[in-house]
Amino acid sequence: MPRLRLALAQTNPTVGDLEGNSRQIVEAARRARAAGADLVATGEMSITGYPIEDLASRPSFLSASKQAVQELAETLAAEGLGDLPVVVGHPDGPFEPRLLDTSNAPTAIAKNCASVLLDGRIVTTTAKYHLPNYSVFDEYRVFIPGDELLVVRIRGVDVALIICEDLWRDGGPVGRVMDAGAGLLLVINASPWIADKDEVRLPLVTRRATENDTLVAYVNIVGGQDDLLFDGDSVVVDGSGAILARAPQWEEHLLVAEVEADASANRTLPAGIRRVDVAGPAYSGDDARSPAPAADIAELPDDLEQLWNGLVTGLRDYVGKNGFRSVILGLSGGIDSAVCAAIAADALGASRVYGVSMPSQWSSDHSRSDADDVAERIGVNYSVEPIADLVAPFESQLKLTGLAAENVQARARALILMGLSNLDGHLVLTTGNKTELSVGYSTIYGDSVGGFAPIKDVPKTMVWELARWRNAFALAQGLVEPIPSNSITKPPSAELRPGQVDQDTLPPYDVLDGILDAYITRALGAADVVALGYDAAVVAEVTRLVDRSEWKRRQGAIGPKISGMAFGRDRRLPITYRPSGL
Amino acid sequence: MPRLRLALAQTNPTVGDLEGNSRQIVEAARRARAAGADLVATGEMSITGYPIEDLASRPSFLSASKQAVQELAETLAAEGLGDLPVVVGHPDGPFEPRLLDTSNAPTAIAKNCASVLLDGRIVTTTAKYHLPNYSVFDEYRVFIPGDELLVVRIRGVDVALIICEDLWRDGGPVGRVMDAGAGLLLVINASPWIADKDEVRLPLVTRRATENDTLVAYVNIVGGQDDLLFDGDSVVVDGSGAILARAPQWEEHLLVAEVEADASANRTLPAGIRRVDVAGPAYSGDDARSPAPAADIAELPDDLEQLWNGLVTGLRDYVGKNGFRSVILGLSGGIDSAVCAAIAADALGASRVYGVSMPSQWSSDHSRSDADDVAERIGVNYSVEPIADLVAPFESQLKLTGLAAENVQARARALILMGLSNLDGHLVLTTGNKTELSVGYSTIYGDSVGGFAPIKDVPKTMVWELARWRNAFALAQGLVEPIPSNSITKPPSAELRPGQVDQDTLPPYDVLDGILDAYITRALGAADVVALGYDAAVVAEVTRLVDRSEWKRRQGAIGPKISGMAFGRDRRLPITYRPSGL
Repeated sequence: MPRLRLALAQTNPTVGDLEGNSRQIVEAARRARAAGADLVATGEMSITGYPIEDLASRPSFLSASKQAVQELAETLAAEGLGDLPVVVGHPDGPFEPRLLDTSNAPTAIAKNCASVLLDGRIVTTTAKYHLPNYSVFDEYRVFIPGDELLVVRIRGVDVALIICEDLWRDGGPVGRVMDAGAGLLLVINASPWIADKDEVRLPLVTRRATENDTLVAYVNIVGGQDDLLFDGDSVVVDGSGAILARAPQWEEHLLVAEVEADASANRTLPAGIRRVDVAGPAYSGDDARSPAPAADIAELPDDLEQLWNGLVTGLRDYVGKNGFRSVILGLSGGIDSAVCAAIAADALGASRVYGVSMPSQWSSDHSRSDADDVAERIGVNYSVEPIADLVAPFESQLKLTGLAAENVQARARALILMGLSNLDGHLVLTTGNKTELSVGYSTIYGDSVGGFAPIKDVPKTMVWELARWRNAFALAQGLVEPIPSNSITKPPSAELRPGQVDQDTLPPYDVLDGILDAYITRALGAADVVALGYDAAVVAEVTRLVDRSEWKRRQGAIGPKISGMAFGRDRRLPITYRPSGL
Repeated sequence: MPRLRLALAQTNPTVGDLEGNSRQIVEAARRARAAGADLVATGEMSITGYPIEDLASRPSFLSASKQAVQELAETLAAEGLGDLPVVVGHPDGPFEPRLLDTSNAPTAIAKNCASVLLDGRIVTTTAKYHLPNYSVFDEYRVFIPGDELLVVRIRGVDVALIICEDLWRDGGPVGRVMDAGAGLLLVINASPWIADKDEVRLPLVTRRATENDTLVAYVNIVGGQDDLLFDGDSVVVDGSGAILARAPQWEEHLLVAEVEADASANRTLPAGIRRVDVAGPAYSGDDARSPAPAADIAELPDDLEQLWNGLVTGLRDYVGKNGFRSVILGLSGGIDSAVCAAIAADALGASRVYGVSMPSQWSSDHSRSDADDVAERIGVNYSVEPIADLVAPFESQLKLTGLAAENVQARARALILMGLSNLDGHLVLTTGNKTELSVGYSTIYGDSVGGFAPIKDVPKTMVWELARWRNAFALAQGLVEPIPSNSITKPPSAELRPGQVDQDTLPPYDVLDGILDAYITRALGAADVVALGYDAAVVAEVTRLVDRSEWKRRQGAIGPKISGMAFGRDRRLPITYRPSGL
């Protein structure tokens, strides 16, 4: 059987950065050549980044993207890499609009494509067939579907080339891989990470391999893009489902694996399958190349470590891709801000993290000392800005009382952080967790202020788990635990009035998170949540809070999405609607 | 030919308010009965409101909606209206998911339906065939498409019943109306208003009438729902394209029109067309009913009046549907806040509008006097809260300079408005216009604060036009002009530093609005904008500002959408991407 040395390149593109993204691909091709590869594959939309959303409806963007693909082919040739086939992902267009243009509306004019570059040219291009349009995906909105299965013949192996969703759906291209007689199924992906994704993704890849009795090479992009996380985790499996190679999560990586594949045969192809002869004669293993290095088979860490590293990746890339150099956040002594500070320090280094303690007259002694403690443990830049003298003029001039007086404290803190951000260019981090954002237990324009919310999709009970995990991880390395144990064990409090604790207002967090998981993530109605065993009055109150605070979440900051159905872009609800518990 | 007396009910539903929306339909049926109608038709999704977005993916919501339809049928019968066919719009489901559920993602399980209610029952139901998924529409995301054309026989007339987008697209149901031998095409709609919508919508209705040589009855919902405006403008045209009846814009209205339609014939229907016999024998015009009243034929006002009334409707409904009773806004003496105050007073009455002048040391004398003047002219509640004593402690404690010092003034004003909102329950209005939001010429968490932005989709040059129009409208009625002429004529200024005017930083507003229209609304790339005749350096700077400020707009407040392609929900761009001018 012919031997094919694959190089799967986990690049970390930034949406729209055609030049930078192309540079990453050239670099990957250089390294692949050095490793003797026959074929380099990059992820879905590796030229433009993913998702491009309505940029796909701008003819100028499509033209520039197409030109970038052409220029990349020429650059590869100029670098002496012209004879190495490189698979890239990119939008193609503009095509004739798919929809009747009824009202000057954006209309699908692009296709989501994979192209093979060789000899300074775009040799062939194929388009994604199944366009996901659920959860975070809007592809049917902006793309025209493809209508074929492409097979590229490379060194005697017929490689079926498909894109992401086409692997997930029965029927369509993946159902024709056997008809095509392909020796290898190559899938290029921009597959967002969510908790437990490995429980569905790897089994799918191995199922497709065994169903088709063929090798599968799966390449994914890596990195954070707004509230999406791409984890990489590219993999090669054989027709028995065995893993031949696996790339690490969260890192740019070139995964090289030499495989033995069925030789191509000149069978007659049914309609809808197109074959293009791309490159060179088959290798049989006795060629003069240096032997293939042993393939990496990375091991996935446990769930909490995956999550922590994902949150670190999301923050690091949001900061870097948006041109910030540093972040600033309030340190209250509580668990949320301590965990955010630790994530930020892991992402950027402590020297680029600025913590500010902003005590009020209601702040307890332990809040101040715990804030000092977290700053010292993590080693962030630290300052103390008491708010009493800032708040008093508002209270007296406006005669604020009750909730209005509580909120002005949170808002004065926001003004401090934004003022220091304006002075020194720090990105402000919002430290709110998913639980409090869900029920509106925060002050709009107060503690909700910030450009990025590292834990906006992490429930409170999981924030504690993460803190314990991160401390244990430090201990195991003989390092200082970053989170003060007091921040983990003390009762949470907003400290906006004397003696206040969260559970004055909210049910116990384990109950609350259970109800929120059922009502939001699992999309159950209130009656079904009660049927799970929760108290009806508590469910009624929690669903009322969720329905009422939907508009706040709409205005919420960007932060990584970690669950299957969360807030923000993948949960679209009206702002004006009657709270109903449905 | 049989005579059919139609009643088209422009109701104003609130999303999710199943009970309130159903009450509106019962009330319309009562009035239709009093007018001797044979058939009542309400708009698309009249039971649930539109758009329901991801509520369509919640089984509990679908079950409750279906139950509401059944209960409405029973209520109509109990009210003695059981023999009057009533067409309602609603989601139906849950059905088997359309998509493979790959990752716990929401999946289409609903159809967008029209049902005929009669004799206490849901007699028949049909589903929308074309699901729009562009601009503000997400229907392919949440709905399963229909697969038929339904014809309901009512008093000897075959009525083809279709839903909104199915009228716009050639092919599908509207292409089969002649095959069905329908005497009347009834279209139920939730058709958002945008500027110049009447230039496409009415011509489409008349085209479908003449193409099919048949009567067309077009019924639309009315009112504001978050950032969508529905204008009503329901209409009946005959097979020659002549208007027989037309409802006014922006008002709940029952449009009654008696038409003569081709009699039904028992022709054999091709596959894909389904006919249901719904109600009673044909009338020929010699029945005992009182004669039909002369049908209303409302005239559309000119463009600026339509726009003004749309902005008033959007504000009124956002406030009312969200349970607020009053609004508060800053009055700077400038044109934007004056126009917003006038819109708010027209929407709610001046007694429910609270204006606050918040002068700083940099405020000019004319700012204070113009703010006083607008408050007096419009008659809103008015107070003055100087900010000097509130800002000084921040400046001195944080040593703020430059932009940071400018922004803290805007943010202190936001704290005042939010504090007063928390004290008295007012909704805070954001007074920013589309131009300044597009280029980021505002302070985040400062003047951008608020729950609703009445003019967020109105370019600055059009704000001036609106002000002049509203003043002329008042004059023509012999009333006081609401907008001080000085607010219209003086150079715009943020007044955050001495002598500052907008044009220190921005190109002239007519140039700026021209570039923004080309770059954003018409989706041209920077090179194409330059080709229109704009200065290349100015275009480069403006497109840079737009690309940079996209994330701010993402966090922007809700406000009515008035153009074909604007900000917010119908323009989806990545937050993290390289500014490029593409």
